[in-house]
Amino acid sequence: MAKFMDVHHGMVGITDQQLQEAHAADLAIQAEEGVTFEHAWADPTEGLIYCLSEAPDAEAVQRIHQRAGHPADEIHAVPLMA
Amino acid sequence: MAKFMDVHHGMVGITDQQLQEAHAADLAIQAEEGVTFEHAWADPTEGLIYCLSEAPDAEAVQRIHQRAGHPADEIHAVPLMA
Repeated sequence: MAKFMDVHHGMVGITDQQLQEAHAADLAIQAEEGVTFEHAWADPTEGLIYCLSEAPDAEAVQRIHQRAGHPADEIHAVPLMA
Repeated sequence: MAKFMDVHHGMVGITDQQLQEAHAADLAIQAEEGVTFEHAWADPTEGLIYCLSEAPDAEAVQRIHQRAGHPADEIHAVPLMA
């Protein structure tokens, strides 16, 4: 298992409710790929969402995001933490 | 107080020790600007560092990062969380 930070672009104006619903859609199916989405943070002004997860690999993260209807634009392995 | 995600570019090859030292340099002076750096995650392959903080404003985050020797390339207010 590894840690990933993925980024979604183009989400200008996203509301708190939309973020909660999107996150819930990930959580509902994440176990099928062995992924755990830990947190999501959104900047509605610039339209960015950052998602932190633990997963077997980046492809598993993307499969969950795609099936939930919001594929990530970037997925970065973040093996170092402080 | 608000939550911020800042991003540093060009950090290809950063080591765990370098990340810990950089984070410690922020922590050592963050109180002077009312900033709390909560976490940092690094992708040494693509040279990206993500820092999550709580701060009065983005300028306070940048002042600490600059004084610690590593100004951020992007600072995003992230008022929404899931």
